[in-house]
Amino acid sequence: MSDQITQQSAAAKAEDAAAAALTLAGKDDATRSEALEAIASSIEGASEEILAANERDVAAAEQLLADGEYTQAFVDRLTLSAEKIDSIAEMVRSVADQTNPLGRTRVARHLDDGLDLYERTVPLGVVGSVFESRPDALVQIASLCLKSGNAAILKGGSEALHTNRVLYELIRDASEDPPDGWIQLIEAREDVDTLLGMDDRIDLMMPRGSADFVRYIQQNTSIPVLGHSDGVCHVYVDRLADLEMATEIAFDAKVQYPAVCNAVETLLVHQAVAEEFLPAMAARYRGADVEMRGDEVTREHIDIAAASEPDWATEYGDLIVSIRVVGSLEDAIDHVTTYGSKHTDAIVTADDERAQRFMLGLDSASVFHNASTRFSDGYRFGLGAEVGISTGKTHARGPVGLEGLTTYQYYLEGDGHVVGDYVGPKARSFTHEEFDGEWPPT
Amino acid sequence: MSDQITQQSAAAKAEDAAAAALTLAGKDDATRSEALEAIASSIEGASEEILAANERDVAAAEQLLADGEYTQAFVDRLTLSAEKIDSIAEMVRSVADQTNPLGRTRVARHLDDGLDLYERTVPLGVVGSVFESRPDALVQIASLCLKSGNAAILKGGSEALHTNRVLYELIRDASEDPPDGWIQLIEAREDVDTLLGMDDRIDLMMPRGSADFVRYIQQNTSIPVLGHSDGVCHVYVDRLADLEMATEIAFDAKVQYPAVCNAVETLLVHQAVAEEFLPAMAARYRGADVEMRGDEVTREHIDIAAASEPDWATEYGDLIVSIRVVGSLEDAIDHVTTYGSKHTDAIVTADDERAQRFMLGLDSASVFHNASTRFSDGYRFGLGAEVGISTGKTHARGPVGLEGLTTYQYYLEGDGHVVGDYVGPKARSFTHEEFDGEWPPT
Repeated sequence: MSDQITQQSAAAKAEDAAAAALTLAGKDDATRSEALEAIASSIEGASEEILAANERDVAAAEQLLADGEYTQAFVDRLTLSAEKIDSIAEMVRSVADQTNPLGRTRVARHLDDGLDLYERTVPLGVVGSVFESRPDALVQIASLCLKSGNAAILKGGSEALHTNRVLYELIRDASEDPPDGWIQLIEAREDVDTLLGMDDRIDLMMPRGSADFVRYIQQNTSIPVLGHSDGVCHVYVDRLADLEMATEIAFDAKVQYPAVCNAVETLLVHQAVAEEFLPAMAARYRGADVEMRGDEVTREHIDIAAASEPDWATEYGDLIVSIRVVGSLEDAIDHVTTYGSKHTDAIVTADDERAQRFMLGLDSASVFHNASTRFSDGYRFGLGAEVGISTGKTHARGPVGLEGLTTYQYYLEGDGHVVGDYVGPKARSFTHEEFDGEWPPT
Repeated sequence: MSDQITQQSAAAKAEDAAAAALTLAGKDDATRSEALEAIASSIEGASEEILAANERDVAAAEQLLADGEYTQAFVDRLTLSAEKIDSIAEMVRSVADQTNPLGRTRVARHLDDGLDLYERTVPLGVVGSVFESRPDALVQIASLCLKSGNAAILKGGSEALHTNRVLYELIRDASEDPPDGWIQLIEAREDVDTLLGMDDRIDLMMPRGSADFVRYIQQNTSIPVLGHSDGVCHVYVDRLADLEMATEIAFDAKVQYPAVCNAVETLLVHQAVAEEFLPAMAARYRGADVEMRGDEVTREHIDIAAASEPDWATEYGDLIVSIRVVGSLEDAIDHVTTYGSKHTDAIVTADDERAQRFMLGLDSASVFHNASTRFSDGYRFGLGAEVGISTGKTHARGPVGLEGLTTYQYYLEGDGHVVGDYVGPKARSFTHEEFDGEWPPT
């Protein structure tokens, strides 16, 4: 079976996926959800096989860790356990349980007597995704694509080669219902370039990886791309903040999982509370071995290294945080607008009016009040799971779940209506009245 | 004033537009609608000035018509009249009257006690549009951008230079309310290339022009692009069609306005009705000087020229139609899938089940039953107006109105919530319950 993965060309896989997508779009929600249940059971039943494949990947990664090429965090993300596999199967079931995103009539509008327009959700078609390291990404993206009626072309990182291959085969073979070819795995970096040229077959690309990699994808394809180039997230501690709450949020946002894109990178502190807040915060961070880099004013309050200009625009992805004291809420907004990546930014304040001023002033996908930036995630947001997080502004923004994998079609039901009747001196006029209705009408 | 149009660089204009967009996003709907009313009045009041500018453009175009460079249809589209100017002002008012597309909370979801997520509509930011010939396009796009809180950078065709310049100045100066710089006009072709590189300042490009031009834009920018490369639309006359209705629809779809993208290019006829339908249809078309090109079977029924393979994929934009007899509804679907451009395709049939089979079988933005393809238009669909028609599948599809010019942000209201409480053995769980609510909460 694995021979097929490597021997069929990427172009042929994209053709197969496009053909399968047409059939898959016609399957009903129950069929798609049952296939997801079968996939969940299949993954649970093959726990040992998955772990064995994962051990091969982890062993190779540990060698590269010893050589200093990989970090421990990288190897940790790659490593599966029996519990982790159970939670992956659970995630597949939670996607199966989501409301059907397809066939929803979002608008029904009378245009004139006997002329009714419907806007109704349909799948995008073929979704391509390139991702790194975490093998659960493959299952997550495949599940969301299947539930939303899309074919998926997946390219994982070479570090997870064996794990991804087993997971792909389990998903492909778990059920007879989705049409053959709906899920495709590619393994060679060159194949990604082939896919980028196939804008007639692939409807959306979702790269997940380094900022440089995402930018490379964006600049080398005319396929629409969703993704985020950077995750430079901020927590702003306002002069009216509950400082104990601010400490807990800033701690969680940095320490709870520093390698991910929704971790905080820069802490902004209103000057009025800097003297009281900073020493307590620094003590908390020191207890977790967080390296701090501050501007001049911050360093008058706590003894830490100096931050340089590039620090403000850096996604550390590690236990490092930059800290800056700002003169006002507006200065905080200016800093985020200048250096941020439009991903997730939070304000801690007891004043609702000031919170709203901050949230309305920012052009970020997610803006939070009194909550950790780490909540910026498809599962936590209630989307079931996510294919990725988008910092772009078109199509889908923030964590992208099922809805981001759909589009819509317009259906018009007439009775011989022609446009000629709506022009000239005796022109009919349109009524344009919305009504409760669904397509197809019964 | 016009000096400013030519002297400021395209890059500086994009910077100005991006700055204005931030301010414009904060204006309320009443302010934006009042500005649109002022624009409508200003256009009506300057009718003579607009007509004088338009006469200069038309005189130049007539010279090129005499030289054989332009067609009469092209010159007709360029030409304004007092009535046409009134209808442009009317269109601006109809955009002003549309429901506010901004600040709508589309989803409100409890994630846990005291932790509420809101998804709420906001403007995209800066929209770039490049369009040809029809001067009302400038007013239409500017109006939709203003109503949806977006800054607009507009590039019209050189054939409408004087008309566009007057309209731009009228719109810019009609009201003090929208921030300076929200509307920008560029006139040089080279400036388009400058804009294409400014993906940090421009959020969406909407080219309207030839297929080659739209493809050029798509392949030379990483800014998201909405547009349609071709408008190869079909009317399929089913074996259960009311043939008189089919004749009227196929006639309207070709003859009512042949130069536009939603005109029909290929007529597909079920073999069971070919003998009865084709002679009557051909007589109708001949009466309007429509050139017909048919496949072999069609030519057994009516005496017309032979269609060649390229005909099936050609957008004539003129009084030419290709005709093919198909063996079944499925053959019609196959033909549209192979040669169509996913724009608008119609079936004429008295059988609802067959209509649905056709409509569900096609991956086109708009699929019609017993109605002319010419209805595929933002105004007719009830969107107020359109910035263009998209044959892509992401973000917005079909005629793009106000909603296609918006995106959304996520707002999370917490009370010191941290992600650390939702992991590990004593993890809290999420409730994920939708509720009726709006952000900002009161």
